[in-house]
Amino acid sequence: MSEFFTVVTPPDAWNLLSQHFTPHVRTEQISTMDALDRVLAAPLVSPQDLPEFPRSTVDGYAVNAADTYGASSSLPAFLAVIGEVAMGRMSDLQLGVGEAALVHTGGMVPAGATGVVMVENTQAVDAASIEVLKAVADGENVIQIGEDIRIGDPILAAGHSLRPQDIGGLLALGITRVEVAVPPRVAIISSGDEVVAPDQPVAPGQVRDINSYTLAGLTKRAGGQPILYGIVPDQREALEAAAAKAHSEADIIVLSAGSSVSYRDLSVDVIAGLGAPGVLAHGLSVRPGKPTIVAVADDKPVFGLPGNPVSAMVIFDLVVTPTIRALLGATDRPKQQVQARLARNIASTAGREDYVQVRLEERDGDMWAVPVFGKSNLIYTLVHADGTVKIDLNANGVREGAWVTVFLH
Amino acid sequence: MSEFFTVVTPPDAWNLLSQHFTPHVRTEQISTMDALDRVLAAPLVSPQDLPEFPRSTVDGYAVNAADTYGASSSLPAFLAVIGEVAMGRMSDLQLGVGEAALVHTGGMVPAGATGVVMVENTQAVDAASIEVLKAVADGENVIQIGEDIRIGDPILAAGHSLRPQDIGGLLALGITRVEVAVPPRVAIISSGDEVVAPDQPVAPGQVRDINSYTLAGLTKRAGGQPILYGIVPDQREALEAAAAKAHSEADIIVLSAGSSVSYRDLSVDVIAGLGAPGVLAHGLSVRPGKPTIVAVADDKPVFGLPGNPVSAMVIFDLVVTPTIRALLGATDRPKQQVQARLARNIASTAGREDYVQVRLEERDGDMWAVPVFGKSNLIYTLVHADGTVKIDLNANGVREGAWVTVFLH
Repeated sequence: MSEFFTVVTPPDAWNLLSQHFTPHVRTEQISTMDALDRVLAAPLVSPQDLPEFPRSTVDGYAVNAADTYGASSSLPAFLAVIGEVAMGRMSDLQLGVGEAALVHTGGMVPAGATGVVMVENTQAVDAASIEVLKAVADGENVIQIGEDIRIGDPILAAGHSLRPQDIGGLLALGITRVEVAVPPRVAIISSGDEVVAPDQPVAPGQVRDINSYTLAGLTKRAGGQPILYGIVPDQREALEAAAAKAHSEADIIVLSAGSSVSYRDLSVDVIAGLGAPGVLAHGLSVRPGKPTIVAVADDKPVFGLPGNPVSAMVIFDLVVTPTIRALLGATDRPKQQVQARLARNIASTAGREDYVQVRLEERDGDMWAVPVFGKSNLIYTLVHADGTVKIDLNANGVREGAWVTVFLH
Repeated sequence: MSEFFTVVTPPDAWNLLSQHFTPHVRTEQISTMDALDRVLAAPLVSPQDLPEFPRSTVDGYAVNAADTYGASSSLPAFLAVIGEVAMGRMSDLQLGVGEAALVHTGGMVPAGATGVVMVENTQAVDAASIEVLKAVADGENVIQIGEDIRIGDPILAAGHSLRPQDIGGLLALGITRVEVAVPPRVAIISSGDEVVAPDQPVAPGQVRDINSYTLAGLTKRAGGQPILYGIVPDQREALEAAAAKAHSEADIIVLSAGSSVSYRDLSVDVIAGLGAPGVLAHGLSVRPGKPTIVAVADDKPVFGLPGNPVSAMVIFDLVVTPTIRALLGATDRPKQQVQARLARNIASTAGREDYVQVRLEERDGDMWAVPVFGKSNLIYTLVHADGTVKIDLNANGVREGAWVTVFLH
């Protein structure tokens, strides 16, 4: 088999792999509270409006906005207080013209009210009446029914990795269980007559196993479950037996071992014998990492990684990580910090740091950060945002088109 | 206490906190294999040279480099083959002048040899002699003793978060147990008469708890251990009892609840009563997130976060995450992608992707990516690198000073 040495580019290797391997995502139902960083297996839609009742965003008085029009401190509007809305209770108050009800932040805005005037903009006259010193608009200081998310609205797509704010957003809707992808099992086989386990003494000529544990860590980071098959001697029968066992137990098989010509010949033979179609690429046009084997055996991807740790890590990131993500059905980009152009002016005040939630959009080849507006009370402001832009303490805002750093969630 | 409302900037809040709170890092010994993403509690130095013997990086013949000087295919050097170095074995071969020994990639270079000529550059004459068709330099194709890391060299500093390649690097040296920081316990107390647990039915006027679970996820991401104290009614006695229990059991206490004036007054009172010195800042100059309480009670940080989820998340990132990192003794920057200027020319060949390991250095206000050279066989090339720069398939290299994207490990 040693004549069979077809060097391909990484994109071509990925295309060959995709042609011969169909990722089947296995799924399980788990508690939403335990689902951090897990990948959603099915899209979710909202089972309810959030909130389900109009909520006040301030401490103040629920009013008919029309009753306050033109009100000022010199010409206040006089309203009768008909009661107080208790927190966490259904309010059966019904506001008529000229009436107001005391309401707290997060409390229900009672029927008949169209806005809430902040307590700072009122003055008590007596126990049953107030003066309103500033007009409120219709809907002012009120979160409307479904303003956070509406019943039937899509929440998150299949393939999305659940972030802390996603967990909060799902639990806010009473979604206490979610269907997520099962972590793919990644078999890691180390080989080499000179390689010993890290807890064993080394004799002259021997080295301890490095790659098994580095690759196990990279597997975990990618969302897979590493299974270590230990160190196999550089003998055909031993390597064949280990590879066959791994192929029957795991979803992805990774051989990591010596990079001598004889070992490469041996491993390409063993991989070729595991199943159809066999070796797709023997050699990648990458530095470091050229001596890489990419194969598929009976719908399971098999990789022969270069023996040296730097190449092994580069190649793992390049081909094994995307394969693990494919078996998770994951679609999201990795968590990082990116530069983007701000899609509209953001005003700010010097002496205050502003954190603006943004959605990323690609337009004409540039990445744009589109501010996601929405009250801070809304969990879906976070769920719909890709990241945060910080406006510095001493800045007076940022202009549309300026480059900003987006810290991805 | 409600008159006590001192708005400070986030840096000032952090300074106040630092003045009144000394992070004591608790530590534990764990298996290195289980230490991914844990924070080192003590600096590590290498207990040995790596490698402990000179290793060949190619398949070929160990030779006296001087014996090959001037060799070419038209005028080969003739050498006597005195044996083969078995993998994983001490070689007792001793090369004399005009002698060579067969050696495999990763095998020991025997005594008397100063370089290894690749098998492609040799030609067998008979079973006991070869012709060398190309000269090798002193040290060529050899990893010297201690070239990866030397005995007594610092490996990693206290405060470093262990990455996959660090795990590999430690195990390569036989360091199978490491002392790491114990995850700080972060008590999360939710409050609000309108808040119910996510698995409970909601009546009109009630909402499900969001923040407890979002904050628990952020705590895990920061390296802390969240402890949820459930939902406490907006009553002084209940909140005092929950806060006192949390203060006795956890390292950091986070109150997350309603943002009504009455609740803020109540929580600032409860926090003030927990211990000395008490409330340090009541209000941060941040949007969103102004109504934040920063306090220290008997050397434990206590935070009153704004009730709304966006503010809570921004403020958590701003003050709670750095506090968790401080209690871990963590010093490293978060994992991200950054722009940096390349510190020297990197040559590349079109038709091949290059991945260059770089160390980041700040010089004159710019971030520079300094290539970390070293053979791909060396795990410490990765351990000493901060990230990877990719040179595209069709680029002919990148010039010194050019801006590149560094993907942090």
